[in-house]
Amino acid sequence: MMTRRNPQLNRHGELIHLLTIEGLPKAILEQILDTAGSFLSVSEREVKKLPLLRGKSVFNLFFENSTRTRTTFEIAAKRLSADVINLDIGRSSTAKGESLLDTIANLSAMHADMFVVRHAQSGAPYLIAQHVAPHVHVINAGDGRHAHPTQGLLDMYTIRHYKRDFTQLSVAIVGDIVHSRVARSDIHALATLGVPEIRVVGPKTLVPGDLAEMGVRVCHDMAEGIRGADVIIMLRLQNERMGGALLPSAGEFFKTFGLTEDKLALAKPDAIVMHPGPINRGVEIASAVADGSHSVILPQVTFGIAVRMAVMSIVAGNEA
Amino acid sequence: MMTRRNPQLNRHGELIHLLTIEGLPKAILEQILDTAGSFLSVSEREVKKLPLLRGKSVFNLFFENSTRTRTTFEIAAKRLSADVINLDIGRSSTAKGESLLDTIANLSAMHADMFVVRHAQSGAPYLIAQHVAPHVHVINAGDGRHAHPTQGLLDMYTIRHYKRDFTQLSVAIVGDIVHSRVARSDIHALATLGVPEIRVVGPKTLVPGDLAEMGVRVCHDMAEGIRGADVIIMLRLQNERMGGALLPSAGEFFKTFGLTEDKLALAKPDAIVMHPGPINRGVEIASAVADGSHSVILPQVTFGIAVRMAVMSIVAGNEA
Amino acid sequence: MMTRRNPQLNRHGELIHLLTIEGLPKAILEQILDTAGSFLSVSEREVKKLPLLRGKSVFNLFFENSTRTRTTFEIAAKRLSADVINLDIGRSSTAKGESLLDTIANLSAMHADMFVVRHAQSGAPYLIAQHVAPHVHVINAGDGRHAHPTQGLLDMYTIRHYKRDFTQLSVAIVGDIVHSRVARSDIHALATLGVPEIRVVGPKTLVPGDLAEMGVRVCHDMAEGIRGADVIIMLRLQNERMGGALLPSAGEFFKTFGLTEDKLALAKPDAIVMHPGPINRGVEIASAVADGSHSVILPQVTFGIAVRMAVMSIVAGNEA
Repeated sequence: MMTRRNPQLNRHGELIHLLTIEGLPKAILEQILDTAGSFLSVSEREVKKLPLLRGKSVFNLFFENSTRTRTTFEIAAKRLSADVINLDIGRSSTAKGESLLDTIANLSAMHADMFVVRHAQSGAPYLIAQHVAPHVHVINAGDGRHAHPTQGLLDMYTIRHYKRDFTQLSVAIVGDIVHSRVARSDIHALATLGVPEIRVVGPKTLVPGDLAEMGVRVCHDMAEGIRGADVIIMLRLQNERMGGALLPSAGEFFKTFGLTEDKLALAKPDAIVMHPGPINRGVEIASAVADGSHSVILPQVTFGIAVRMAVMSIVAGNEA
Repeated sequence: MMTRRNPQLNRHGELIHLLTIEGLPKAILEQILDTAGSFLSVSEREVKKLPLLRGKSVFNLFFENSTRTRTTFEIAAKRLSADVINLDIGRSSTAKGESLLDTIANLSAMHADMFVVRHAQSGAPYLIAQHVAPHVHVINAGDGRHAHPTQGLLDMYTIRHYKRDFTQLSVAIVGDIVHSRVARSDIHALATLGVPEIRVVGPKTLVPGDLAEMGVRVCHDMAEGIRGADVIIMLRLQNERMGGALLPSAGEFFKTFGLTEDKLALAKPDAIVMHPGPINRGVEIASAVADGSHSVILPQVTFGIAVRMAVMSIVAGNEA
Repeated sequence: MMTRRNPQLNRHGELIHLLTIEGLPKAILEQILDTAGSFLSVSEREVKKLPLLRGKSVFNLFFENSTRTRTTFEIAAKRLSADVINLDIGRSSTAKGESLLDTIANLSAMHADMFVVRHAQSGAPYLIAQHVAPHVHVINAGDGRHAHPTQGLLDMYTIRHYKRDFTQLSVAIVGDIVHSRVARSDIHALATLGVPEIRVVGPKTLVPGDLAEMGVRVCHDMAEGIRGADVIIMLRLQNERMGGALLPSAGEFFKTFGLTEDKLALAKPDAIVMHPGPINRGVEIASAVADGSHSVILPQVTFGIAVRMAVMSIVAGNEA
């Protein structure tokens, strides 16, 4: 019987693209986290410059604008000594009517070694990965509502850093689950790494009903959702994505699902609070919590550079 | 008797700027092609990183936007280890009313070593070359309808790669000749390299009548134009450049001058099909041809990086 | 008795940020000028590439657009072998409502080593410097009408290069003093370096009255202002900054305060003419003067790269 191979892995089961966390074996997630750890020096949380991608060309293809995420990939690639090319896609040939695949074929012919792709359309990085030469690697930097795997991985790095063992944890993901590729990537990663209790918390309009089938506990009550949690992952309320009918108001949301010190007191005493950023103070999170002693939001950013370096260096070492 | 010196050459006849292919000796064209070849490894078509421009600052001055061409120069310069500065000219001092020459003088004073210039106005790179310090080099990346010499050279590299000997070839350039700086650069290069038969093919509105005087055969019939050709160079139909009166419609153009498999059958059995990109599928070229076995459109892109590296490294080695 | 420490200096009195020239000891100004000099080779005015910032990440944070100034910092940082990240702030998270300090905290967590900040609001770089980690350095690249310290320092470098001894000089600053952060930085630097006669020259609407209290001579008559001057610093007439009520017209301004050859004849025979650029020919300065033998406007630009390299390398060597 033939099994359709995971397009992210070569026939030796090695990672050649990072498109989604879904379906990646636990050993590969752990390889990425271990490699990231080796890039961070314990004492200083400082990443040193390494020659692992010297002479390689990394193209940042952001069809959907995100200066913050693009910057983290740019820094990660430069720390690995790669040449980084930022493409302002809105102004490029795609604007002249060239197809996505023609653009990719042309950039590949310019000797690209890696594409970091953000696209508003779910699946775009897959399409690209199917059409590149064997030595070219694709990293999904966020596609539609589908996946944001490097964010998921840096979240796992952060949890492991503070909690060590995944198999005893209760993790709550709070907010706009339905629009969140971060939530989706986190859930897959947490499940693969053996987290026994994953909760998604939010109003009915923002939490997909089918998550229960994935073994996730759906909570529409905030107190129930975060009570006893070891880890609380707050999601950004994407005002710009919503029609308006899904939510009464930002103030109303904060009252019900915003993370305040009072609500945080329901979680474990040593709970950590995470957020993919940028945070909306007073919307999904109170300033006292964002800046408080439970918050690990800024360490997430630091770990994110190391995790992206890890992913880039691992895929660059493998061929299709 | 005084002869006015070619502004691209120093008094030893060495290349210091690349402004146009017109008037360049055959030996210099061959030097560029040979140097480009040395940058491409035979087995992999892969360009290695070289330290030839280490410590040099290359400024990409794109007064006319072209992400694709700018990217090829950026990659070429980085492969030569140069520092690359991309200037978003639309937003810079020129917008504050500074003259082109004042901008150039200032950038030169910032220790620029090389300017890669694209400008909507024909001749702008000449003006710049006349005013830079002796150690500064100017490369024309396309000026108005005048010239696009690196495209011309990469086209020559491609032809030589597949056909070896220029002196037995019949080359057809098809499409919007009148607006094409690529066509002009190709014609000069082909003539200098000894191609005996150069044909330009297109409707009367898009082919300048005076080309016949240059020894070029003008064909307004597609079948006549490509019959027996060894090389077919299709040009991009620049819809954005035309007023509308010059052409009936894109569909009409495709029917008459678009390269289909049927029409391609009129050329030599081993003919190659080239295009400067980005291609308009179904306008000047059928997808079956663009993606077919005669097409060398993507190798052109790869060769373009090596040719730009060659031009940069050659001019950087010579002083005015 | 406690004295409030200068936020630019650590407790050893070493420079850790460059926010303003005001209050900086003469020894530090001289250290910067001497270091800049060591980066310029005497014979060629050419800056060599140095490894002093290898592995460091320099972020160009231009909240107010200035391609020219950003480029000088980018070149300076690359010459010191730093990784440079240009952030298009207008399009980044600040546009999503993130606060300045949250943006800075996030970028710091990405392992930024240095922020080069331009901001329309006076004091923004101070706010940033107060909140960064001890190993992070902030350089003010112009904040509102307040200060532009690297411009002030490159002006001092230029004056010292041509005049050697500050203590015998008469320096006239001419034009739109009231809106000029350059003028303010120059005045502080000139005073610290011992220039006995500093004159500001311009119409009453463009010269603040309180400058006389700073020991500066205020002249509303151009002839009086530049007579016998060793150095004339012309300021750019910032048309875009003024409401229109402050000035009759550009032509009128030129007639009264524009520097022509006739007016320049009133200064010392070996006077030098400076300008921060970009120049408005025929508004604040005649072309004959800008391009004439007294003009040192282009050398200022060259010296500016070396001065910015000096500032960057000095602060990078010190910790808070």
